[in-house]
Amino acid sequence: MPEILIRKPQATRRYAAVEQVLIDYIRQIAPISDAEIETILELITIRSYPKGRLLLREGQVANICYFVLQGCIRQYFLVDGQEKTTAFFTEGMPVSSNGMPFDNKISKSFLVCNEACTLIEGREEDEAEFFNRLPRMEMLGRIGVEMELQKSQEALAEYILTSPEERYLNLLETRPDLLERVPQYQLASFLGVTPESLSRIRKRIMAK
Amino acid sequence: MPEILIRKPQATRRYAAVEQVLIDYIRQIAPISDAEIETILELITIRSYPKGRLLLREGQVANICYFVLQGCIRQYFLVDGQEKTTAFFTEGMPVSSNGMPFDNKISKSFLVCNEACTLIEGREEDEAEFFNRLPRMEMLGRIGVEMELQKSQEALAEYILTSPEERYLNLLETRPDLLERVPQYQLASFLGVTPESLSRIRKRIMAK
Repeated sequence: MPEILIRKPQATRRYAAVEQVLIDYIRQIAPISDAEIETILELITIRSYPKGRLLLREGQVANICYFVLQGCIRQYFLVDGQEKTTAFFTEGMPVSSNGMPFDNKISKSFLVCNEACTLIEGREEDEAEFFNRLPRMEMLGRIGVEMELQKSQEALAEYILTSPEERYLNLLETRPDLLERVPQYQLASFLGVTPESLSRIRKRIMAK
Repeated sequence: MPEILIRKPQATRRYAAVEQVLIDYIRQIAPISDAEIETILELITIRSYPKGRLLLREGQVANICYFVLQGCIRQYFLVDGQEKTTAFFTEGMPVSSNGMPFDNKISKSFLVCNEACTLIEGREEDEAEFFNRLPRMEMLGRIGVEMELQKSQEALAEYILTSPEERYLNLLETRPDLLERVPQYQLASFLGVTPESLSRIRKRIMAK
């Protein structure tokens, strides 16, 4: 790909903070050359959305997958008219909770920008060219998804094993930022308790 | 790979039932040629284990991943000396709940053969040759793991959203075989209830 060779020199430029989020994510999977990074940045689509924007509705076809460069996406289900929060996706997290990317599955859940978000948008029609230009990304992609699978399965095991208070303490340890940036009623729903029990849990923990 | 061409004719043979489980799994991801199947069957390691065999212990390095051709593997954690069951892996399910394959992570959980099992064992040292011989499997692998990720994330959302009784009804619908082949106390632990509450749930459902 001569184009990459030509672009190589500028690959030494400093990357934008949002670009760095993606680069750090990829580099935790495997080493990657500046040339490859340039090609990736050239092929991906980055978009920004305001706080409150619905990215996906229940009943809608989930045909876009996201990667969070900045902000927080919340997944929730409507159960008897009540929002039940099941996931928060923040910087460096792929958003794949709405069916296998590109299987055109009808979504059962909602995705909303809990904050102003800057996201990579992955569309099926772009995937072929992406992997043609960057065949090695097929392998990195597989390993990356394996990492996400591990995290997801650990999260499920944790949810089965722990009490809401233990889950809160785990969040405090693993995702302290979440406790600051997410409204308490959403956090309570995510932990599987009422807002009242969550504030009792917080009081107990402060008291310790 | 001339060897494959030579083996091609015999690819029309009927496959063993356990082999068919793997072939069906791959074919739900993408079409695959008889020649590719022959190569896969030639490269994989299939082993059988007796009921009760521990495949992985807490504290042990998880450096083998499995795919269940026959039988049932149970994942559990020891919490205050009590077994807490977090997953059952049956025919056609990859077992990847112990860290990303090959990241040599210390396992927090146990894997036990709940029945006599026939498994594909994946070892890191075999992976390179596998993907060299079958480069296209890199892509199928990624899509396969994406499918597992979707299932895992749906399972987590379901666990957050549902009551133990709803989870039991979902199992009845999605994995009825599990209710027959798994001891009630393990099922109860998996559903997050005591064996007593599980039998109450069953009575309520029968009564309907």
